[in-house]
Amino acid sequence: MTLHFEDLRPGAVYDLGEVTVDEAEMLAFARRFDPQPFHADPVAALDTPFGGVIASGWYTMCLWMRMYVDRVLSDSTSQGSPGLSELRWLAPVRAGDVLRGRLTVVESMPSSTRPGRGTAVLRGEVFRDGEPVLRTTFRGLFGRRSQDHR
Amino acid sequence: MTLHFEDLRPGAVYDLGEVTVDEAEMLAFARRFDPQPFHADPVAALDTPFGGVIASGWYTMCLWMRMYVDRVLSDSTSQGSPGLSELRWLAPVRAGDVLRGRLTVVESMPSSTRPGRGTAVLRGEVFRDGEPVLRTTFRGLFGRRSQDHR
Repeated sequence: MTLHFEDLRPGAVYDLGEVTVDEAEMLAFARRFDPQPFHADPVAALDTPFGGVIASGWYTMCLWMRMYVDRVLSDSTSQGSPGLSELRWLAPVRAGDVLRGRLTVVESMPSSTRPGRGTAVLRGEVFRDGEPVLRTTFRGLFGRRSQDHR
Repeated sequence: MTLHFEDLRPGAVYDLGEVTVDEAEMLAFARRFDPQPFHADPVAALDTPFGGVIASGWYTMCLWMRMYVDRVLSDSTSQGSPGLSELRWLAPVRAGDVLRGRLTVVESMPSSTRPGRGTAVLRGEVFRDGEPVLRTTFRGLFGRRSQDHR
């Protein structure tokens, strides 16, 4: 059943499944978008404080995004996002790590100006072996099931 | 000359150059990381509020990141970022758009616990024809030129 604004109840938690960090894709992403030595160069990374290549934080963010689309947004009335108020990279992520995604509904607010739409404040998290490695708090815009409740 | 923490003076503005949004890469990125219809499917996108494909906000963010690495971080003592406190997508971005990147130093704080390092609060912006389409405020960690000023 298509997820609408009304379905996003504060406190609800969605398991987004898991993904294993693929070394080749992780490096290709870094070389295109974030070519710092500790993200893109396995040899040079040995001499950095990280002692080896770690994933670009944007790559970890994008892996979470894909899980969120697959498990939640793909059958929803999502209308995009105006942005986010927090994004924290809490621990380095490396090739082979198994990451689990989670989404929590923090708050939901019907739009005062657009009766067919509402805004949800959402928290996205990525865990590795139960340890949080990424956390973000953002807004999502969703169409409402019915405009009768305006 | 390698950019160190001391070089990041509050108020300093760096032009990061410009990039043209490539349609094929924009779509490939969306299909892998953010496969919502209005990002990944040119036909389905016609029936969304955006009237056509718009770039995933993560793609626009990544284009800025690459400009930031090329113009600032590539010759610096950057040690990564713990995260950001703001990321706003202010206007839709589409294929063919010419985007200009900018970096502004907001604040800089020597570390109280690690004398060899400092934190800068930085603002990243993306403009199209002078109009802002993305704004972010984040922290960057940088090595210090000398530890004599502790």
